[in-house]
Amino acid sequence: MSSVTTPKGVLLKSDTIASKFVDEVKTMLGARPRRPKLVGILSTSSAPSLSYANFTRKQCDALGIDFELKETGAALGGEGAEGEGVEEAIIEANADPGVDGIMVYYPVFGAQQDHYLQQVVSPFKDVEGLNFKFHFNLYHNIRYLDPKSLTSAAPLTRYPEPTTGDIPPPGAVKSILPCTPLGVVKALENIGVYNSLLPYGDRAYGKTVTVINRSEVVGRPLAALLANDGACVFSVDINSIQVYTKRPDARYFHPRHVVRPTPLSLEECLAQSDVVVSAVPGETYKVKTSALKDGCVCINVAADKNFEADVREKASLYLPTVGKITILMLLRNLLRLQEYQDLVRSQN
Amino acid sequence: MSSVTTPKGVLLKSDTIASKFVDEVKTMLGARPRRPKLVGILSTSSAPSLSYANFTRKQCDALGIDFELKETGAALGGEGAEGEGVEEAIIEANADPGVDGIMVYYPVFGAQQDHYLQQVVSPFKDVEGLNFKFHFNLYHNIRYLDPKSLTSAAPLTRYPEPTTGDIPPPGAVKSILPCTPLGVVKALENIGVYNSLLPYGDRAYGKTVTVINRSEVVGRPLAALLANDGACVFSVDINSIQVYTKRPDARYFHPRHVVRPTPLSLEECLAQSDVVVSAVPGETYKVKTSALKDGCVCINVAADKNFEADVREKASLYLPTVGKITILMLLRNLLRLQEYQDLVRSQN
Repeated sequence: MSSVTTPKGVLLKSDTIASKFVDEVKTMLGARPRRPKLVGILSTSSAPSLSYANFTRKQCDALGIDFELKETGAALGGEGAEGEGVEEAIIEANADPGVDGIMVYYPVFGAQQDHYLQQVVSPFKDVEGLNFKFHFNLYHNIRYLDPKSLTSAAPLTRYPEPTTGDIPPPGAVKSILPCTPLGVVKALENIGVYNSLLPYGDRAYGKTVTVINRSEVVGRPLAALLANDGACVFSVDINSIQVYTKRPDARYFHPRHVVRPTPLSLEECLAQSDVVVSAVPGETYKVKTSALKDGCVCINVAADKNFEADVREKASLYLPTVGKITILMLLRNLLRLQEYQDLVRSQN
Repeated sequence: MSSVTTPKGVLLKSDTIASKFVDEVKTMLGARPRRPKLVGILSTSSAPSLSYANFTRKQCDALGIDFELKETGAALGGEGAEGEGVEEAIIEANADPGVDGIMVYYPVFGAQQDHYLQQVVSPFKDVEGLNFKFHFNLYHNIRYLDPKSLTSAAPLTRYPEPTTGDIPPPGAVKSILPCTPLGVVKALENIGVYNSLLPYGDRAYGKTVTVINRSEVVGRPLAALLANDGACVFSVDINSIQVYTKRPDARYFHPRHVVRPTPLSLEECLAQSDVVVSAVPGETYKVKTSALKDGCVCINVAADKNFEADVREKASLYLPTVGKITILMLLRNLLRLQEYQDLVRSQN
């Protein structure tokens, strides 16, 4: 009797998935009257941030997008403090008509103060999709907006109607989505977790997903996006586990996700999850391979590896990094925002 | 030889300081064509939040302000989850023309997601002063605003001029300040730390203050307010100590504070501080009495006691709670916002 080796799961490459979006961005670029310009603002001495800035430049160079890195504070070496001058640099880039998009290399001060900075970036140049307006749309499953509305802070006085169709209403354009969560969704579309036979806006229906992290930058928007697309999502953070779903029980379907606590443990969630996305900062956190459902899809979004080395003993597909996809989403946002700015200018 | 007992510092009462603002609010109320209405939104099972809600009602009743408590989610008991329905309740209150002010009993979901909720509250009804627009003004020492600007989200494209005078420009009204930091400033004005012989906007000049906590809700706005008023402020959090000052060295005066790191330890900061404000959640954190400068002023902003029982052995004045002052600041904001809403309505 010969020994039988169970085949390991497939190791996916971020580059392969990203290449499709490289073509899309190139086509969009070809149709533009002028090269878009992205400004990166680096205000800390963080080595990963510098390396991400260099990576951004490389991607921009390869595609024909102008990239300018503005260094302030501790990024300049010398006596500059961490984060010094970052707010001034944002306001300057907001004002510069030659700048189409602004990205800030976070973390700068920490989650709370960085949230403040994210609101200083003009929504017209917010390629990272971190402005409150975009988050509000995302959480409420509002997929389109009137670009002029980006200049209005009219108070929210009615509960908005979620979007169900895939064609924008007249005068409307697509809302901007935060690039990391969007990159994960695009990866899931590309590797067959989303099913294109299902109607638009519900193509993750039938899939159970665990998202480990509930920050406002990655975990919560990702859970909301997936649930708005029909998935049943377990959102896990250090304090609690919640379910995000459009179908809280068999009788109801909500046009946007609702959130409820769940008594399930992380192990119980993992045991039934078709997809596990982990975005926990730090080297020590690991999702146990033994807890995974056999044949699941695992995506590591953290800078450190959140999955154990033997993850492919259980996972059918494993994507160890989404960096390249994320940056393509950011450049796609840049091209959209350049178009929205031009639209609003032409209407004035 | 008879034994000499060193007299202890004075124990201050929040009520005594608040009483002045009770009169101010009553006078403002007397001049109003209609009673203002405040809506409180309680969406958790937190006992301190419920007790704060009851306290709000008592203050409103005493002054002749309508107060309605909207309970949702876990506040209702039963099956409601923590925070469930809070965003819907905010949007409903934004829309209700009979509601002049909205306060949400935080924490609901935690700092990051609560920051999102704070942006959902209409700036016209934001009695807590937590909207990004108000924070931006505060950090930049912009003391006035055009009430119509509260409906605009025009991107920030120039570095704004700080305000130096105490008379609003034509058409402008006072910006709204977050009520807890404002309550501390008002307490310091009332107990003589601010000196009215100094020019407006610089009345804390010469005072060194340590603020322990750098959250976006209490510590950072408080440090900025005090520094914009001329104090030299040490801002302390778990990771770092910074100096907030308008006079970073003898040669320069900035119209708004600048922030720099400092190599000083907490003990070194305390040793030279005329005022120590602590707002650290949790029972275990204590400022050591032995580290205080003799004759300093101590203010406890946390729900727990951050100062040791013997604090008055060193402090000349000790204010153990600011709750009553904070709520008066909130009601003052309510009356102002009611006026701003009426102003904007009358201009349309």
